[in-house]
Amino acid sequence: MQRDIYIAGSGLTRFGELWEKSLRDLMDEAIDAALRSSELDVLEIDLVVVANMLAEITNDQAGLGALASSLLPHHPPAVRVESACGSGALALHTACAFLESGRAKTVLVLGAEKMTDAPTDVVSQALMGAADSELDAPAGLTFPGIFGLIAQRYMYEYGLTREQLSIVSSVHHSHAAENTFAQFRQGLTPEAVSASPLVSDPLRLFDCSPISDGAAACILSTEHKSSVRLCASQIASDTLSITERPTIVSFPATREAMDKALLEADIERSDIQAVETHDCFSIAAIINMEDLGFAKEGKGVKIYEDLYTGQTPLFVNMSGGLKACGHPVAVTGIKQVIDMGKCLKRENVQYGLTHNFGGAAASCGIHILENLAV
Amino acid sequence: MQRDIYIAGSGLTRFGELWEKSLRDLMDEAIDAALRSSELDVLEIDLVVVANMLAEITNDQAGLGALASSLLPHHPPAVRVESACGSGALALHTACAFLESGRAKTVLVLGAEKMTDAPTDVVSQALMGAADSELDAPAGLTFPGIFGLIAQRYMYEYGLTREQLSIVSSVHHSHAAENTFAQFRQGLTPEAVSASPLVSDPLRLFDCSPISDGAAACILSTEHKSSVRLCASQIASDTLSITERPTIVSFPATREAMDKALLEADIERSDIQAVETHDCFSIAAIINMEDLGFAKEGKGVKIYEDLYTGQTPLFVNMSGGLKACGHPVAVTGIKQVIDMGKCLKRENVQYGLTHNFGGAAASCGIHILENLAV
Repeated sequence: MQRDIYIAGSGLTRFGELWEKSLRDLMDEAIDAALRSSELDVLEIDLVVVANMLAEITNDQAGLGALASSLLPHHPPAVRVESACGSGALALHTACAFLESGRAKTVLVLGAEKMTDAPTDVVSQALMGAADSELDAPAGLTFPGIFGLIAQRYMYEYGLTREQLSIVSSVHHSHAAENTFAQFRQGLTPEAVSASPLVSDPLRLFDCSPISDGAAACILSTEHKSSVRLCASQIASDTLSITERPTIVSFPATREAMDKALLEADIERSDIQAVETHDCFSIAAIINMEDLGFAKEGKGVKIYEDLYTGQTPLFVNMSGGLKACGHPVAVTGIKQVIDMGKCLKRENVQYGLTHNFGGAAASCGIHILENLAV
Repeated sequence: MQRDIYIAGSGLTRFGELWEKSLRDLMDEAIDAALRSSELDVLEIDLVVVANMLAEITNDQAGLGALASSLLPHHPPAVRVESACGSGALALHTACAFLESGRAKTVLVLGAEKMTDAPTDVVSQALMGAADSELDAPAGLTFPGIFGLIAQRYMYEYGLTREQLSIVSSVHHSHAAENTFAQFRQGLTPEAVSASPLVSDPLRLFDCSPISDGAAACILSTEHKSSVRLCASQIASDTLSITERPTIVSFPATREAMDKALLEADIERSDIQAVETHDCFSIAAIINMEDLGFAKEGKGVKIYEDLYTGQTPLFVNMSGGLKACGHPVAVTGIKQVIDMGKCLKRENVQYGLTHNFGGAAASCGIHILENLAV
């Protein structure tokens, strides 16, 4: 990082089906919580970066930068960043560039999605915007369809079983039980995952992250020091369409962003003790463990098997991940960083990593956080 | 500016109803033209910033950063920035922050919109996303409606006549005649503007910028010097809704961005000899002249009267502006900078300014360019 960037405040709304709250309400609530958690005055916010994917369709609302700015008394400059489900990480990355450039000293990074007001078919089609509308959509694919194909191929190549795959969501639900902001806090056995309705063979309902409302606000600052700083912020891209890739069982954008992030943080992979990763579908979590370098190719599920039996020291998706905490798409990358900050303090570990992507990892953002109190 | 940033290359598609070209085609064409105009290798592009407002609705396509990255052989990191019709300027501003931070050395700023594939009512509703969906839209407002109200109030306060207002579009059409990329190159008399069909009283059809397809690619670099450099990049925000403002006949975001831009460029307003301003509606062009400080309150039309009779040395919207060159919404701010670069060289003047906004100036971006060959 060109400058030291600290998490000076953070706020979350609960994730879930929040019928009684509008997009504006959610933004307001997260901003308010972030300011209350911080020691700074609202007028010190000199830039807002908003992450949002779906509001044009689910809320007839573009220009979310200006909307966020409207909610603050001094209407600071604001930009909205979108990169599908990876919008959150890319918004954080953009904020870092503004902070490093010296153009801003304290940036409010605000993610918000209000997904449940629209019918499921509308949301599903809108989410398909994260794939290639010329190369992928005409085949009739949806995102469960894309990750279903990925799971099929992964099982063929590496022999992963349905029973193994079911462990992933079970682990995430067990973690969400402790998270008061999570959408699903009830336990989920692997057997229940395997028995849930088929969505896109081999993926079943409980392999899939839900449709969620929610907002997250993270205040990054070069001025206001705190005990958690960012030590890497990296992004990478890939082809938007999976049809243009040599393989679909590994995501090069994750690998590229991870390599760059470790270099930037100047640490070893083994220094990282906690991870929040993008489990939009259970199979993604397994592939991510491999692409992030925590498991060999084809062996990602071993980490989840060890998590299930309590045999690994690595903290993974302690928030509950996308599956159990919820997945208000553009909010996720910001929520991951906020929850990782909490995790580092709670577990008293030094380095944590967040991994967020858009589409089938057509874009990827990775952040490494350091707990300075360790 | 924290670093010297040069326009190292630029490319435009024609603006208009480009039925035969997809969004991807437009992006490809602009990128290709920009690379051909430059001396750099495509692999030197280390970041893409995409400006787009409408693709989720008009093209079922989000994630335009990754789409743009897909079109380049090395799939560089990419972010998409959206701020309604001000997306272009905000994308350029974001690119500047990345360049100034040192995270990028050569950034492709790509604007693209494919608006004409969708029916007019769909496009109109999507454009209304640039207003406040809770505070403005429920009143039945559209953007011609909002600017119709603004024009009504302006006429009431300052006595502007319908005949005077009609001069604005006439001037813009006369300029577009010379622009081979413009959507409307035919002449337009003030009388024809006044006689065109009423859209939103007092605004008539020829007061309104059109629905356009188009793309623009501008390569900004700290490495590749050229004869045109940016000497200011500033943005500002206002409330998204006009209902929350003390007046609607002046746009504070323009004034704020302008003040900051002059300070950053360290020049006087009188040093600026050429302007590209955001004439989404004719009344906006008049208000902009006042907010930018080139005319006193209520006197903005005087500049257009002088332009019409050839009595002012100021070059204004030599591209034809949004009215005659066309207004593929997120592309406009980038096109302005590209056309200003050409204008500075053609007219052999030193400083030019571009002014782009989103919604009713809920966000605003201003860039000042310097012709180093003068």
